Amino acid sequence: PKQKRIAVLPGDGIGPEIVEEGAKVAKAAGEQFGYTLQFDFGLVGGGAIERLKQPLPQETLTLCRESDAVLLGAVGGPRWDRNPPELRPEKALLGLRKQLDLFANLRPATLFPGLAKSSALKPEVLDGVDLLVVRELTSGIYFGKQFTEQTERGAKATDTLVYEEHEIERIVRRAFEIAKGRRKKLTSVDKANILESSRLWRKVVDRVAEEYPDVQVEHMLVDNCAMQIIRRPTDFDVIVTENMFGDILSDEAAILTGSIGMLPSASLGGGDRGLYEPVHGSAPDIAGQGVANPIATILSVAMMFRHSFQDDEAAKAIEGAVTDVFASGARTMDVVSAGELALSTEELGDKVVEAL
Amino acid sequence: PKQKRIAVLPGDGIGPEIVEEGAKVAKAAGEQFGYTLQFDFGLVGGGAIERLKQPLPQETLTLCRESDAVLLGAVGGPRWDRNPPELRPEKALLGLRKQLDLFANLRPATLFPGLAKSSALKPEVLDGVDLLVVRELTSGIYFGKQFTEQTERGAKATDTLVYEEHEIERIVRRAFEIAKGRRKKLTSVDKANILESSRLWRKVVDRVAEEYPDVQVEHMLVDNCAMQIIRRPTDFDVIVTENMFGDILSDEAAILTGSIGMLPSASLGGGDRGLYEPVHGSAPDIAGQGVANPIATILSVAMMFRHSFQDDEAAKAIEGAVTDVFASGARTMDVVSAGELALSTEELGDKVVEAL
Ligand SMILES: CC(C)[C@H](C(=O)O)[C@@H](O)C(=O)O
Ligand SMILES: CC(C)[C@H](C(=O)O)[C@@H](O)C(=O)O
Repeated sequence: PKQKRIAVLPGDGIGPEIVEEGAKVAKAAGEQFGYTLQFDFGLVGGGAIERLKQPLPQETLTLCRESDAVLLGAVGGPRWDRNPPELRPEKALLGLRKQLDLFANLRPATLFPGLAKSSALKPEVLDGVDLLVVRELTSGIYFGKQFTEQTERGAKATDTLVYEEHEIERIVRRAFEIAKGRRKKLTSVDKANILESSRLWRKVVDRVAEEYPDVQVEHMLVDNCAMQIIRRPTDFDVIVTENMFGDILSDEAAILTGSIGMLPSASLGGGDRGLYEPVHGSAPDIAGQGVANPIATILSVAMMFRHSFQDDEAAKAIEGAVTDVFASGARTMDVVSAGELALSTEELGDKVVEAL
Repeated sequence: PKQKRIAVLPGDGIGPEIVEEGAKVAKAAGEQFGYTLQFDFGLVGGGAIERLKQPLPQETLTLCRESDAVLLGAVGGPRWDRNPPELRPEKALLGLRKQLDLFANLRPATLFPGLAKSSALKPEVLDGVDLLVVRELTSGIYFGKQFTEQTERGAKATDTLVYEEHEIERIVRRAFEIAKGRRKKLTSVDKANILESSRLWRKVVDRVAEEYPDVQVEHMLVDNCAMQIIRRPTDFDVIVTENMFGDILSDEAAILTGSIGMLPSASLGGGDRGLYEPVHGSAPDIAGQGVANPIATILSVAMMFRHSFQDDEAAKAIEGAVTDVFASGARTMDVVSAGELALSTEELGDKVVEAL
């Protein structure tokens, strides 16, 4: 049997509830496709701060390094919002990304049947949406030097946005490879009319593009893209962009799926190991109520089979099960329409397992 | 009679066409409300680069300084896209903003009657949208140090995002003042979980907020805002944010108006002088065809009367004329729906003058 170790980091807020459903689906798919899966739990984020006074304990990091894949829920909450930077739950995400060198963040946005109703967009705009944001995840302004000075006129805060050519090259190359296996269109998003790092980004894209003559490339300014992604979402196939722009645009793309509760993500490095997590946050306002949408996490598990276990068949089985469940009208309250019955987190997870 | 000097900078692409309609409407409103308006034309952007080898000639800057208001079309085009930073048309915008100290950029997004049809969003989501993005315009990553170094591993590009407390304070205070005169809700957008400058921003907002107890304040992360602005646009009144986030979010908000051809802007400093321009760009693809939407420019002229001439009555008259024109079904091709007749730039400008 295929043996795999999965590090499970439930995190804060709704993290534990949704990860439970994700793990449940992983288990079911694992049995069906002949895997022996080992699940090891670790502390991360606010919970880790409370118990161990650090958002990303060394033992959690070691666990992740020794695993084939990491399944993460979400971190953060109002309780830690006023903590100093080093004691904020988000630091755990940054630490995991950087330490495991997970430079490629894949955030696909597709529309599931029956969900157009719960989107803010018109159905005809959404029809056929299938885009993928490939976000650089280990550099840029997230990891540049930052500091605050005191001047005569008050405080002065500085952040630094740095990109090295090789950092751009590896993410761009990954995006081209992915586009090649899809509809062969790549949109590179930057702010080259203002940023020096964007001008370097654009140069690297143009250089790498020569190696992929069959992929159609376009450059788009981030402000324009923020508009076009909503105006004509079906024009996009793969979008590649730097860390901060990717953060903004992928959350925005959640609109296309009907709910941010639907958006999965994979964070990949050079090898097979990956980190899988929903794009949404820890949603402290609904934590513990059993109403959170587990689909983003379940779809992240599908991505785990695809990218870390190289098992497209199992991935498609999970995605197919989700599609069937939605087609049957089952959904959580965030995407429920008038006249439909909202299921609990657990009930929806069970439905997906059944459909599998 | 009220004497005012208006510096007119048509710029590139569709700039001249739309500015002509804007000036026409300014003239008509001026006559109606007892003004003597003087229009002086200046070179800016690509045209200035061609003739004077600089995007913002000294005489243009002097003209603006000596005027009560600046009416600008748009700058830029593919012809100058590969120029070095100092010879790019966009530098003219940055130069004008910085030199005239126009730190407050107001970008209102409202839906005109009959335009919901041409929006990507569902009519029920758009119903009642009336939001204003207040963007900081003279600092942040647009004006920080930037450079590229050569390292052993290739090029390395750096941009710097700097905010000083007093820069944040003046824009935040302006936003509170504006919110006070509207629905009294202010959303401050930042990325405080990552950026040092955002944490300073948030601190300043909280401090200034104490002086405006009647204004309801919320903090929102930029990624979340990029989603919420589409999902529930009517929840927003005034949004205040830093330069780059404001650039992205205001273009995105254009979606709410049906077309980016509808979005005006005012850039204000400490005094009455302001710069007025459409949010959209120079659209080289449709330049010279007489099909561009002049409404963003005409609405910018309305803002000119309001903010630089302190004449709310004249501003409302222009806005009312635009509303009437749209209600009558007249529109340009970017917002035309099936079965409707698309007018030319000039015809639509004439309609607004008539309605006045
Ligand atoms: C929580 C936050 C630090 C994080 C980010 O900005 O990367 C989140 O928004 C995400 O997109 O994963
Ligand atoms: C042209 C560009 C430099 C400019 C900006 O980014 O500020 C434009 O997008 C705008 O919003 O006015």
